[in-house]
Formats: sequence, structure tokens, C-alpha cells
Amino acid sequence: MYLDIGNVLDASPITEATLERLDERVAVAHDRIEQGMAAEEHGYAALNLPETVDTQEIRSAVEPFGTPAAILTVGIGGSALGAATISAALADQTDVEAHFLDNVDPEETAELLDDLPLDETVVNVVSRSGTTAETLANFLVVREAMADAGVDWTDQTFVTTGDEGNLRNLADKHDLPSLKVPDGVPGRFSALSTVGLACGALQGLDIERVVDGARSEMASLSGSLHDSPAYAYGAVCYALAERGALTNAMMPYAESLEYFAEWFAQLWAESLGKEGLGQTPARALGATDQHSQLQLYRAGPRDKLVTLVRPREREDIGIPETDLEGLSYLGGAGLGDLLDAEFEATEASLAAEDRPNVRIEVDRVDAEGIGELLYAMEAATVMYGELAGVSTFTQPAVEWGKKAARGLLGGGEFAEAEAVADKREFTIE
Amino acid sequence: MYLDIGNVLDASPITEATLERLDERVAVAHDRIEQGMAAEEHGYAALNLPETVDTQEIRSAVEPFGTPAAILTVGIGGSALGAATISAALADQTDVEAHFLDNVDPEETAELLDDLPLDETVVNVVSRSGTTAETLANFLVVREAMADAGVDWTDQTFVTTGDEGNLRNLADKHDLPSLKVPDGVPGRFSALSTVGLACGALQGLDIERVVDGARSEMASLSGSLHDSPAYAYGAVCYALAERGALTNAMMPYAESLEYFAEWFAQLWAESLGKEGLGQTPARALGATDQHSQLQLYRAGPRDKLVTLVRPREREDIGIPETDLEGLSYLGGAGLGDLLDAEFEATEASLAAEDRPNVRIEVDRVDAEGIGELLYAMEAATVMYGELAGVSTFTQPAVEWGKKAARGLLGGGEFAEAEAVADKREFTIE
Repeated sequence: MYLDIGNVLDASPITEATLERLDERVAVAHDRIEQGMAAEEHGYAALNLPETVDTQEIRSAVEPFGTPAAILTVGIGGSALGAATISAALADQTDVEAHFLDNVDPEETAELLDDLPLDETVVNVVSRSGTTAETLANFLVVREAMADAGVDWTDQTFVTTGDEGNLRNLADKHDLPSLKVPDGVPGRFSALSTVGLACGALQGLDIERVVDGARSEMASLSGSLHDSPAYAYGAVCYALAERGALTNAMMPYAESLEYFAEWFAQLWAESLGKEGLGQTPARALGATDQHSQLQLYRAGPRDKLVTLVRPREREDIGIPETDLEGLSYLGGAGLGDLLDAEFEATEASLAAEDRPNVRIEVDRVDAEGIGELLYAMEAATVMYGELAGVSTFTQPAVEWGKKAARGLLGGGEFAEAEAVADKREFTIE
Repeated sequence: MYLDIGNVLDASPITEATLERLDERVAVAHDRIEQGMAAEEHGYAALNLPETVDTQEIRSAVEPFGTPAAILTVGIGGSALGAATISAALADQTDVEAHFLDNVDPEETAELLDDLPLDETVVNVVSRSGTTAETLANFLVVREAMADAGVDWTDQTFVTTGDEGNLRNLADKHDLPSLKVPDGVPGRFSALSTVGLACGALQGLDIERVVDGARSEMASLSGSLHDSPAYAYGAVCYALAERGALTNAMMPYAESLEYFAEWFAQLWAESLGKEGLGQTPARALGATDQHSQLQLYRAGPRDKLVTLVRPREREDIGIPETDLEGLSYLGGAGLGDLLDAEFEATEASLAAEDRPNVRIEVDRVDAEGIGELLYAMEAATVMYGELAGVSTFTQPAVEWGKKAARGLLGGGEFAEAEAVADKREFTIE
């Protein structure tokens, strides 16, 4: 992965002298991270995955399913986003379609189950605890739909979960092929583990090369931001946030990386959004969002960093020659050339208004490229968390709502559910 | 549309007394808006569309195409988002698939053109000026693909554009069915015009009822926020932004409204993001983003408003009874019940931490419901713009990049393109 922070130095209060001071703190943080990795501490263990994940074990586990027509992953949050990111980036490498049930919208679920060839679909259920309400509710619905379609669900269900709990018991009882969620790896850091790679393996994707890409980023971790694009990105985002850039617009210039921006948004928000701190990830897409968000990014409040991501190479399509008035310049160029020109134009247009932006590039959006991006953003998140002094690997603020929802559905007595009933209303109709 | 701002009054510095002071300004702004509407001024004219749009004209214009297998809309920004929002909300009402080419990604374009049955697809090209680089480049590529497939593109192309320019000339030359972009209606305010409704008409959707829904919201515009949900929403967002809520997370609890959040993001960002002001729209989706963004929304910086949107009724799917440990409470409920419980739990969990949030509801996600939402958000945007004193209907900050991109591709001499070459580099690899 290539990182260029020239347009931070040119367009923000951060100077090369700031970087040097920051680099001393990066060295200290790196020591802490290395120590956490060596001891396989909770969270830090995720940064070891390029060395510890066993892709052969994953391949063997999914082998019984051969080549199905489609994979339906049932999971939510970190149990879906890593797999979805890899599948979307590598969609051109397989004929096996990947679908995701990562919400409990009845209309969407009904439509998806109507469209899928259930007798040729492998259901990939993912939940560490085996009790995630949304995932289990969806799985119960899917299982019933398969039964209604005369399909034996036990022949077509794959499970990724912890050592115990409902899903583990179910896998044991019905002898379902399964994998274990690794210890010490929070959901949002699990893209490079069984959780994120099983779907790709079921699709026949080259998961080994995804891990290779991650490993090459792992090799760059060092005590200086000048040697590690991942650490440099995390440190610069932290320094900008401290100086008021409370939003980070993640804007890939490749449709195949749209899910990557979703995945990043979870990683960044849930890891760093605590104790009043954190940088809000804004999911954007180039060039489309130039016609939507760029006005705001360039002329709105000075509270943003824009992160522009692109591949250095891609398959292009030539734009046919045209005699349309004022458009002859397009003929002979490719759509990709246009996209690249827009990338560079947007970058410069932000810099011209002193709006800090960062350029991230990979050689291609391929297995290695997506592996690099996934690992680098995880390491960047951990670096940012160390510098900010937050508890990067927890998500305490979501428990309240889980209890309230459970209470509302009659799943026990919870004070949180009572607070829902006390809502103040002030309605305008 | 129903609006409930109880959790703003309960969780922010805004009190009922604040609302009363704000209401005096709303009255003044409403006078200005009424005047603009009466004189059909640029931008304000968009708020007249429920009365001025001619759905019969739209139906007649698309009539030659009968019922195709698919519609491919080629447009970007406001030329695509309104149509995409309506099509997504009403996808269950038609068998005609809607696809959108709203980016210049060569790999995505190639894949889409490979998958589409080109001989049964109507191409719906939308560009007010007829010179939008992305749209014209895509159209040239699509036209060539049709020729390669032995399809006469002149039989299957529909055009929506202005009175003059390339696309108008093309429509005239080849006698293509076409519609005119209405005067005084900026792209991001054009969902309820020919621009946003032609695609729905081609799909056979009930565009009259979309306009009916919009008209019912139009009827609520008045000199007091207490009578108009649209104005109340705009005014409250403005007041919150002035008090530091620089991000507005738009979070529908319905997959069919995911595009609505995209459309809103353009409307809000491009209209209000100027002169250092504006509120950054964060696109979110319930319940999925509870597992991604909620930690940040509840425990991160106090710089956010969360807007929760849902239908009051939807088709539900029952969750099968289960003896899985600790999950029996789910059995008997529906997926929709779970989604609603999560909606209310999230709302309360934010309020419990004094994080302001707003509830927006429509009866159903149907033609009237989406018409209400589209119109109300447009009126809210105009109200916010009046209160903030910005030029709501322009987007001056995007011109710089357009010139730079054009210059980079050899489309003329532009100083902006030279600035791109001067980029400061500071790379870390």
C-alpha cells in the first residue's frame, strides 16, 4: 500500500516538525502494540492473523460443499462486513454469487429468499456468541424457507462460531461443517480470520493471496511512521482529529471498494468512538460523490479529512470517438482515465482550499490489494487508539440498546426497556 | 409524514422556549419561500413541482417502450439519485428492473453491460446540460455496446435534458422520445420532476401517487414549525448545527430506504455545505449500523444529530419458534417486530446519553410515503438554507475540479489542471 500525505502537510496545521514529534509517540505505541501481539492479548492478537490464520483449515472445512451457485452469509456487523468486503473486491474472480443477510428487514429477507436457488445455496452462519438476535432470527427464517422448499438445511449449512453456545451445539448435533472464531479477535478485526475468509473460500477465491497481501503490510510495522504506511495513516488521522478534523470521509475511486468503505466505517467508529473522542467515518464513493458531497467537503466546515483510495491499474474501457459538441476530448481516453483525472482533480481542488486529504493506493484491486488494505486499516486503527488512549477493542455503548430491545420483545426484565416507554413525545404532523 | 422531536428537547440545549424563538424566524423564512415559489424563482420553483409536474406527459413520453425487461439510467448526482430512490422504495411494485450507471468505473460498467439483456433494455439518459462528462462518456460506451450486440440504440433510448445542447440535438436528430428538465429546478431538487419520475414511469410505477404524497406535504407548509413537519425538521437541524451538531446521521430502518439516505446526503450536503457552514450527512442503516456506528453516536464527540426513519406498517415475516437456549423470546415475533424494537431501543439509548435524535415516520414505504419523504426533505433543506442565510440552490465549489479534470484529459487549457501537476508529495511505502 502506498500512502501520500503531501496534501496534509500542505493544507493543515500539521507540518514536518509535527510529524517528528508524533513519530516519538508512534515509537512508544509500537512497543505497546508489539508487546500485545507477542502476548496474544485481546485485540492485538488480530494483528497476528497473517501469521496465525490457517487457510488450509478453512479450505478443508468448506470442501464438502464443492462449488455451489450462491453463498448466503447470515451475520451482522463484523460477522458480515469483512467477508462482504473481500467478496465485493474480488467479484470478478468467481461465478459463485455472495449474498448477505445483515439486517432484519422482513421485506428484504423475503425478496432475497424468493430469488435464491435454495437447493444450490450454502448458508454461512456467523456469530461468535451464537446468540446474536438478528443473526439467529434470520437463520431461523432461512432454515424454515429451506424446509418449505424441500431442501435439507443440514446438508447446506456452514457455521462459524465460538467454542460454545447455540450455534456450536447445533453444529455438533447435526454434524455441520464448521470453523471456530479465533480467540482474542474482536468482530470488526476478524476479516483476515475464519470469520472473513470462509465466504471467500466457499466462493473459490484465492484467500491465500489475501493473506499474503496482509502479511506484506504486517512486515512494514515498525517504530517509525516513516516506514509504515499503516501507522502513518493512523497517526496522521489522530493528529488531524485532535486539531478538529472530526470527520474522515473514506472515498474509494472504485465501485469494487464500496464495501471496503463500509467495513472501514465500522472499524473506525466502533474502535475509536468512545469517551467523547473519535472521528466520524463518512462513507463516500468517487467519482459519484463529487456530484454530491464535494461541495460540502470543499466549502463547508473545516472539520474534515478526505481519504482518497484507488488502484494504480485497472481494466479500462475505451470511450468511443465522438463529434458531440465540446466532448471530442473524451474520445480515445478510457473510462478509467476519466476516473483517474477526476481523482487527481478532486485531490487538488481540496488542497487548493486548504482541505487536508490523503492518497492511498494499491497496485490493483485484487486479492493482495484487498489484503493490504484490510490489514493496513486495522493497524492504523490500533495506532490511532494507542495515541488517543482509548480502549480500542471494546464497544460498551451498544449494550444498553441490546438489553432494551430484548426487554421490549419479552426476553426478560430490563430497566432499559422501561426507559423506552418513558420517551418524551413532541410530535408535528 | 410524522415528526417527533421529543428527544431533541430532552437531550440537547434546545428547549420549547428555543423553539418559540425559532418559530418567529420560520415565519419570516416561510414568507420568503412563498414569494420564491409564487415567482417561480430558481430553486424555489422545485417546491411547486407537486402542482406543476405533468405525470400524463411523462406517461405519454415513455409509452412507446411498452414494458421492457430493464431500464438503464445513465446519469450522475441529481440526475440519478431521485430516480434511484423512487425505484428502490417501490421495487416490490414492478418486474422491470432498474439499473444505474452513475459512476465511470470501467470494471463496473463492463460487468453491468455483460449482464443486461441489451435488446430488452431501455436506456434512460439524463443530463440537464447534455455535456456532463461522466454521463456522456458512459452513454457513448453503452451506445457502442448496443451496436456491438446488434441492437438499434435509437429504438431504445430515452432522453431527459434541457432545451438545447448535445443530448437535445441527438434526440432531435434521431427522433428519440424525450422529456425536458424543468426550468428553475436544480438537479438535487428534481426527484419529483421529469428527471426523477421518468424511470418510474418506464417501470410502470404509480408516479401519480408519488406526486400525491408530495402534494400532501406541500399542503402542510405554513408560517409555523408547529404545523409543518418539513419546516420543523429543517429548523431543528439548523438550530442543532448552530449548537455544534455538525453531523446528521440519516438512519432509515428499512432496506428499501437505503437509497433515500443517499439522495438525502446529496440534497443536504450540496445545498447547505458552503461558506464554512453546513451539516455533514452520514448515511446509515438500521438495524445494521447499530453494530457499526452506534458506539460512536452514543459515546463519541457530541457533534451529532441522529435522524431515525421508519414506516409504521410493513409486511412482516414470522420468526419460527425455537428451543435454542436464551432465544425462545424471538419465536412468535416477526422480523419487523425485532426491527421496530431495535429502532425504539436505539432511540432511547441515544436519549439516555443526551444525544439528540429525531423520529420520522411514514405510514408505509409506498408511492405516497416516498413522495412525502422526498418533498418534506426538500422543504426542510430550503428552510435550513433560509435560516442559515446560504445560497441553497448553487454548488460553486465543484467547478474547480471539473475544470481540472477536463484540462487533465486535454479538453482545454485550465490553470486548475496545472495546479494538479504541482501537488506536494510526501510518500510512505
